[in-house]
Amino acid sequence: MPKKMPLYVEGFNPFGDLIGLAFTRVEKGCSQCMLEVNAKLLNPHRALHGGVTYTMADTGMGAALLSCIDDDELCSTIEIKIVYFKAVVSGTLTCDTKVIHKSKRIATLESEIKHEGRLVAKALGTWSIYQEKRD
Amino acid sequence: MPKKMPLYVEGFNPFGDLIGLAFTRVEKGCSQCMLEVNAKLLNPHRALHGGVTYTMADTGMGAALLSCIDDDELCSTIEIKIVYFKAVVSGTLTCDTKVIHKSKRIATLESEIKHEGRLVAKALGTWSIYQEKRD
Amino acid sequence: MPKKMPLYVEGFNPFGDLIGLAFTRVEKGCSQCMLEVNAKLLNPHRALHGGVTYTMADTGMGAALLSCIDDDELCSTIEIKIVYFKAVVSGTLTCDTKVIHKSKRIATLESEIKHEGRLVAKALGTWSIYQEKRD
Amino acid sequence: MPKKMPLYVEGFNPFGDLIGLAFTRVEKGCSQCMLEVNAKLLNPHRALHGGVTYTMADTGMGAALLSCIDDDELCSTIEIKIVYFKAVVSGTLTCDTKVIHKSKRIATLESEIKHEGRLVAKALGTWSIYQEKRD
Repeated sequence: MPKKMPLYVEGFNPFGDLIGLAFTRVEKGCSQCMLEVNAKLLNPHRALHGGVTYTMADTGMGAALLSCIDDDELCSTIEIKIVYFKAVVSGTLTCDTKVIHKSKRIATLESEIKHEGRLVAKALGTWSIYQEKRD
Repeated sequence: MPKKMPLYVEGFNPFGDLIGLAFTRVEKGCSQCMLEVNAKLLNPHRALHGGVTYTMADTGMGAALLSCIDDDELCSTIEIKIVYFKAVVSGTLTCDTKVIHKSKRIATLESEIKHEGRLVAKALGTWSIYQEKRD
Repeated sequence: MPKKMPLYVEGFNPFGDLIGLAFTRVEKGCSQCMLEVNAKLLNPHRALHGGVTYTMADTGMGAALLSCIDDDELCSTIEIKIVYFKAVVSGTLTCDTKVIHKSKRIATLESEIKHEGRLVAKALGTWSIYQEKRD
Repeated sequence: MPKKMPLYVEGFNPFGDLIGLAFTRVEKGCSQCMLEVNAKLLNPHRALHGGVTYTMADTGMGAALLSCIDDDELCSTIEIKIVYFKAVVSGTLTCDTKVIHKSKRIATLESEIKHEGRLVAKALGTWSIYQEKRD
């Protein structure tokens, strides 16, 4: 996995591609990604499925953390809590993520997901940082 | 939205369909859904994206809660915390969900996601229950 | 319970008194409380017990939310997630809390707990808002 | 800190003593602790303060994890989410905790807090495991 990843690499993140996730900024422990709501991403209420919003946060956290760990380190999600404020049925979502604390092995990140400037969800997650070759 | 939903209705849950989510049981505050890992669902580590696992839990919670609320009630996710124990790269995941507490307006549910009988993730979520016509 | 509570009322919050919690600001959906570490509040590692830090966040959230709900409404904690960044062994902790979203029945709040200006813990919680006489 | 800790040692856990927390079982990744509600532990609603319930879970997790890590290892809370189902105003609370997953450096635990046999709160937490001498 390239550590200095460009904003988009074809096939780098298959599930991100499937839902149409696009990064617009990744640097210094921060990231921003965007997504256009479409019919395939809806839940039974005809609103954006919460799993899509969650995936923005989870992926945004990975990108933000990857931008500030060492070249021989990798990271993965330990746990994330996400809270939803408002259903979204169309338009564009933006997810801004930042590292709020980082020690050698553990980092905490938070993501704010907005729809037309309005906060629609927030996530707080814990990540593990480890050496690339663990075994 | 039909309250006594059958295990599968074409187009009922578009995002569930996109990721290949299938319910095998929904009754009395419990649900079970399954998913086959495929190349489109992977993350940059070439493991199943955590957003897919989360979507199993979120959707499983919705189905479980829907099975035990009144006919004129609906429900939606307030917040979910999910914790991951092991990366999954192929095979079938099973997500078992149950309502662990329900009051008039709030319910708490938990999901266990297993891969070949082994616990790979667990989620604990809070849901809102409300009358069908909110406005 | 008086809705326009002053910053301190003898006996208003017995457990807050037991741990020495003092509010320095409560208004418009925000609160600030402080606490001096003392020997009775330590854990087996001789650091401040995480339950004390949590109590600052939980109590701070209650005060912040109470300041912005109607006179005939009350509130109580549904769930809180707290994450710790650094152990504290002495000195003064400050907990700043704010409502980040509020609907009619549900509110989300976050607390930042600092020690000498440094973030040592963060909490994200969900609260229920209800009419004073529910039955 | 003694690794094979007996169920009670005077002064071992000052904050646990302050709230009257007593362990009745600690072994093989499980623990059980109890607490009698008293006037000093109440919140402004005259119910048990949520910080006390949380402290049972946090302390119970520490004891359960300590019982199954190596002699030269220590552990500390990374994060805990607790959800409340019912207010408690008097009587005895019991908190049962178990390790639900443990890797070399990270463990996940859950606690169920009951009042007269009824589930009143549940917690899901992440802990860090590390060598005793970190510096």
